[in-house]
Amino acid sequence: MTHAHGYAAHSATTPLVPFSFERREPGEHDVAIDILHCGVCHSDLHTARNEWGGAVYPCVPGHEIVGTVTRVGAAVTAFAVGDTVGVGCMVDSCQRCDSCAEGLEQYCENGFTGTYDSKEQVSRANTLGGYSDHIVVNDKFVLRITHPPEQLAAVAPLLCAGITSYSPLREWKVGPGMKVGIVGLGGLGHMGVKLAAAMGAHVVLFTTSPNKVEDAKRLGATEVVVSTNPAEMKPHRNSFDFILNTVAAPHNLDAFLSLLKRDGTMTLVGAPATPHPSPGAFNLIFKRRRLAGSLIGGIAETQEMLDFCAQRGIVSDVEPIPMSGINDAYERMLRSDVKYRFVVDMSTLQPSSSS
Amino acid sequence: MTHAHGYAAHSATTPLVPFSFERREPGEHDVAIDILHCGVCHSDLHTARNEWGGAVYPCVPGHEIVGTVTRVGAAVTAFAVGDTVGVGCMVDSCQRCDSCAEGLEQYCENGFTGTYDSKEQVSRANTLGGYSDHIVVNDKFVLRITHPPEQLAAVAPLLCAGITSYSPLREWKVGPGMKVGIVGLGGLGHMGVKLAAAMGAHVVLFTTSPNKVEDAKRLGATEVVVSTNPAEMKPHRNSFDFILNTVAAPHNLDAFLSLLKRDGTMTLVGAPATPHPSPGAFNLIFKRRRLAGSLIGGIAETQEMLDFCAQRGIVSDVEPIPMSGINDAYERMLRSDVKYRFVVDMSTLQPSSSS
Repeated sequence: MTHAHGYAAHSATTPLVPFSFERREPGEHDVAIDILHCGVCHSDLHTARNEWGGAVYPCVPGHEIVGTVTRVGAAVTAFAVGDTVGVGCMVDSCQRCDSCAEGLEQYCENGFTGTYDSKEQVSRANTLGGYSDHIVVNDKFVLRITHPPEQLAAVAPLLCAGITSYSPLREWKVGPGMKVGIVGLGGLGHMGVKLAAAMGAHVVLFTTSPNKVEDAKRLGATEVVVSTNPAEMKPHRNSFDFILNTVAAPHNLDAFLSLLKRDGTMTLVGAPATPHPSPGAFNLIFKRRRLAGSLIGGIAETQEMLDFCAQRGIVSDVEPIPMSGINDAYERMLRSDVKYRFVVDMSTLQPSSSS
Repeated sequence: MTHAHGYAAHSATTPLVPFSFERREPGEHDVAIDILHCGVCHSDLHTARNEWGGAVYPCVPGHEIVGTVTRVGAAVTAFAVGDTVGVGCMVDSCQRCDSCAEGLEQYCENGFTGTYDSKEQVSRANTLGGYSDHIVVNDKFVLRITHPPEQLAAVAPLLCAGITSYSPLREWKVGPGMKVGIVGLGGLGHMGVKLAAAMGAHVVLFTTSPNKVEDAKRLGATEVVVSTNPAEMKPHRNSFDFILNTVAAPHNLDAFLSLLKRDGTMTLVGAPATPHPSPGAFNLIFKRRRLAGSLIGGIAETQEMLDFCAQRGIVSDVEPIPMSGINDAYERMLRSDVKYRFVVDMSTLQPSSSS
């Protein structure tokens, strides 16, 4: 076993505090990684506070991990000590079902192993995530990072927010000549704008905040629409090829479905705690529209996304924080007071006093 | 003008009664058709009773029309006097938008002209449908029928119920090796079962009525599931490639979405008067599933469906009624007391006393 330091929630109602724990020795197929940066995803907060139910404590969140390889197992050939690598939302899967065979481990039919608050495939031990000094991960779930060193903090959110936006844009073949909507300008939405613009689409950002208009244009949006203003929405009816809806708060889906062309698709990537108001069947029927969902992305596609971003210099807009600032960051995240992702600088992590 | 006899509703709350009216003389591109049979669609009742709003009276319903050509305009080359033909839900469209150019007139961006209670393209006159002795239709919206004469009554429902089921089955590429669900065994559902089975799929019929099990198997279902029984539903989780949902009454969509495989689609073809309970985003996100809609089918696809059915001897299961029985038929339809479509025998129509 190796001794690890991190931050954990010990209950749904107490703040995260320093925490020491053990990780396994790297096995034959494992990669040990010293964590440099870890992004702060809204899922971290949902889990730490048990808002989705079933959280196991102590809970160490964090699944937007960038770090340096320190050890590799005997059977590992793709990575070497000193490599810069990433780990996203998954650290394992059954690796034998149809979805895994197709490189879609996120839809593993036997359930993938999440980077935190999930069960290891064999031992069924609870996984502990990236708010920690190091992690040990099966080599199939380690990603290669080729961005320059000074961008690594801003790369971390690509591992969840980036791939969650990228995968549906690819699935629905976004490219030049397409009009693409991105609903919501948060961690996911700001990546959606950057990625859809980089793919060559005409990008329209929908926001409820008039003060986000300029920023959305800076990020790559061709147009910005304040979605609460019917006069701004109406000219866009029946005009979109694809809409990526990143808003998890329950909202009126019909307002956006009606903006799709015939055969257009709106994909949801945010999971609301309570359901959206029911979309009308007429909006789907009369233009043969589609409402879909999408969950992160497979490992091969995550590597493709990282390479795509590295080639184009795409990273997240981030605000670095020290590990001790995580509880304040959660409160600011709840107020949408972040542009657009907090990233923990793991060099600020001190060995736990309880270690 | 030509003198026509039919049955009309004169208000939302009065029964249909005999009615005389004028139809246009066939123009250069028109086909005049003596109507032999007209199917009774639930939309007829919705419109006659103004349940969708906006109905114009007098209202002559009927859009599942089979008849014989009696006259053709000078420019008509595809049809000749004596031909057996059909007319479905559309009698015209703008014929210049992208959807029309693609043969998807049902999604005409300027609005297709419905066979009844709709506006003619130029005159904007209200259209009057197939509960009548004859009709005059633009030749582009006339379908060729090659079924034998004794099947013509049973062919009529193909013009709406048939194509409404056929089009989404084709759109989502139903064929051998696929597991396909059909929800509801009514006018649409019984055609869905026959067509999906003819396309080579493994067909599972979902019904709330245990007494429909044997009939569904006779129609071509491999399996029948009583959808109100969780023990019957559960073994089918994550197993369907496609589900055609024909039920217009509001119901729990999640019960069926959760039966789809990853990347599976459920298409709605029934439009509820009040919304379905809201489907959960998790069901879409965690298997990248799709909820879609579909509206009848284009003219070329309707011809393809008629030819497909003629080659395989596929027709609807129908109960012939006299024109004077239409009001009773509506009441029975509301009780689902029909297997599976009423078809008016138009030879029973007497010239109106008001003519």
